[in-house]
Amino acid sequence: MTEPTWAPSLRAVATESPLVHCLTNIVVAGFTANVLLALGASPAMVENAEEAGPFAEVAGAVLVNLGTLSGEREAAMRAAAAAAEGASRPWVLDPVAVGALEHRTLLARELLGHGPTVIRGNASEIASLAGVAGAAGRGVDSKMGSGAAVGAARELARSSGAVVAVSGAVDYVTDGRQVLEVPGGDVLMTRVTGVGCALGAVMAALLAVVSDPLTAARDASAILKEAGSRAASPPPPGPGTFAVRLLDALGLLALEAAP
Amino acid sequence: MTEPTWAPSLRAVATESPLVHCLTNIVVAGFTANVLLALGASPAMVENAEEAGPFAEVAGAVLVNLGTLSGEREAAMRAAAAAAEGASRPWVLDPVAVGALEHRTLLARELLGHGPTVIRGNASEIASLAGVAGAAGRGVDSKMGSGAAVGAARELARSSGAVVAVSGAVDYVTDGRQVLEVPGGDVLMTRVTGVGCALGAVMAALLAVVSDPLTAARDASAILKEAGSRAASPPPPGPGTFAVRLLDALGLLALEAAP
Amino acid sequence: MTEPTWAPSLRAVATESPLVHCLTNIVVAGFTANVLLALGASPAMVENAEEAGPFAEVAGAVLVNLGTLSGEREAAMRAAAAAAEGASRPWVLDPVAVGALEHRTLLARELLGHGPTVIRGNASEIASLAGVAGAAGRGVDSKMGSGAAVGAARELARSSGAVVAVSGAVDYVTDGRQVLEVPGGDVLMTRVTGVGCALGAVMAALLAVVSDPLTAARDASAILKEAGSRAASPPPPGPGTFAVRLLDALGLLALEAAP
Repeated sequence: MTEPTWAPSLRAVATESPLVHCLTNIVVAGFTANVLLALGASPAMVENAEEAGPFAEVAGAVLVNLGTLSGEREAAMRAAAAAAEGASRPWVLDPVAVGALEHRTLLARELLGHGPTVIRGNASEIASLAGVAGAAGRGVDSKMGSGAAVGAARELARSSGAVVAVSGAVDYVTDGRQVLEVPGGDVLMTRVTGVGCALGAVMAALLAVVSDPLTAARDASAILKEAGSRAASPPPPGPGTFAVRLLDALGLLALEAAP
Repeated sequence: MTEPTWAPSLRAVATESPLVHCLTNIVVAGFTANVLLALGASPAMVENAEEAGPFAEVAGAVLVNLGTLSGEREAAMRAAAAAAEGASRPWVLDPVAVGALEHRTLLARELLGHGPTVIRGNASEIASLAGVAGAAGRGVDSKMGSGAAVGAARELARSSGAVVAVSGAVDYVTDGRQVLEVPGGDVLMTRVTGVGCALGAVMAALLAVVSDPLTAARDASAILKEAGSRAASPPPPGPGTFAVRLLDALGLLALEAAP
Repeated sequence: MTEPTWAPSLRAVATESPLVHCLTNIVVAGFTANVLLALGASPAMVENAEEAGPFAEVAGAVLVNLGTLSGEREAAMRAAAAAAEGASRPWVLDPVAVGALEHRTLLARELLGHGPTVIRGNASEIASLAGVAGAAGRGVDSKMGSGAAVGAARELARSSGAVVAVSGAVDYVTDGRQVLEVPGGDVLMTRVTGVGCALGAVMAALLAVVSDPLTAARDASAILKEAGSRAASPPPPGPGTFAVRLLDALGLLALEAAP
């Protein structure tokens, strides 16, 4: 049996157990940690101004997710992004609700200056960050399908130097030249909070152990899509069971990929 | 088969997917988002001082839950309540542990000045907010049964202009004149954190799509009681399974109510 | 059938339902509350500077967990520890990631001055707090087995006057003289976020109702190990199911211990 494309990336996570420094939001912090633990990574959430910078320098990769901002969390994000840049650590920017709220749109633009390795968002967030007028979503939800943001994603990848990932029914990942499609998953992934945010964290975990960012972003998307498909079959009674099965499926994928 | 009283409200949530702006606490933020997503609403947690006001103006409804306060969260709550009032957006005040702690009791009284549409709490919280001496609970738990706070709830409804909801073994909802009773649910709902807090969020979701606040508050209580009853039958092995089933039941109720 | 050693402690929690004031982190706050509720305790998270001190004086016990620090949370921790000391309330210090980050190492040393009743951590955290050079862990994970920190734990217990608990494949609990071993549990406990943090909270719950801190800490460890063993048998499909079963098992243990 041929193993899936993403198996070597997942095996590397399970083997090396990268330390993933997450600056994320109060809604999904627990779920994000559980997703990373299921895959064998080592999550650590450090979000105060004093520690976020030094910790970014020793972490395998950093996630900066703009979900629930605060003055101190913003200072910590700036420090972590600057430290990651300075120490050449890969880092992921997840521009939650950018476009819908001006304050965080400015913050995201500022953070782009520290050279994120990957930018992951839904179509509205990516298009807004790329400067497409009228792309803003509704709260944290996109009002565009992911395919509609592929052009904006390519532009953003070219202007920022980052790999850009657009999440949706189909995920797209681009370095500005190639555009890779990742189909699969299940609509129930939108009925559980934090699946998109956790995807950003999984991308960070893979960036810590895989040298090519385009491969890391694509494989992370494919791993989460595969787990979502498995968790949806047979149809679960509802989103509660689906979330439990999603963590189980991620754990099983990690076991299957293990050497 | 006649559909339940609350079915039209739930159908409206599933159809319109209202954007619910939640300022809530770190303990229940994830569970609250999952409850809203299960029903088809669109939760977004924004709790910084810069964004909470502008976001309240575009949301369908706002929840202000005093669970884990911080200086910045309080500033955001003041801004959100003022903006909701100014933009005539419905908003729910959940006065967690008011009466037990003086600081938040003063904050809750101040927020009353911005005209919450619904106030939801347990008996001790509602009685304390109504000014009943000696009503204070123990931490976040009530030391009174919900029925004992009905008089205080009516008074608070009259003095504040809000619909007041008292949660307990029986839920009571009043506009100061009528008092509606919502029985049902299960004692396991007190063994899972955040069920009461999530009820406040569901009330906000219904307020965004139902014009009458008394109806919205009653239907939200009835929906959560129904889901709780279903999740408790057959008896689950414990509170972990019960919480999973509760989300499943909410998702199923939304499907059943869908057009 | 003889009941287990820890049954009287658990029965006391279920009967007295102690109010446990938790200053903890955004990752595990919900899970910690659910663990305490499953056992019949009454958790309340209060983490603002104004309320943390007064609330510590009325709580049955206090937990100070350094997971996700912020300026305000630190001020609240100082206030809570000082108030607990002043009011002779038992309190637990959980020095998450101490040794790995200098800022929190200094904070933990300062908090030692308020006489924690119990200090609970993994081997790297305990050894670092005891001043062992080179003991620092990797993020929130230990790089030593728990047995390697027993000597450091005894020293820390003697110098601080606290009972010290080292968590790992075997848990060790010491007052500086006796060292008690608690075997059991399952490796899946390390694949779910917050199990160690929740153990600190359970220790606080037991301290509120059991007079001897060494007994309280040992029994808390044994209760969580027993629940972990039960949740792991038969082998669950993955960490999602394991976490649900762990809460179920805690709820069942509390029922079994009830009078």
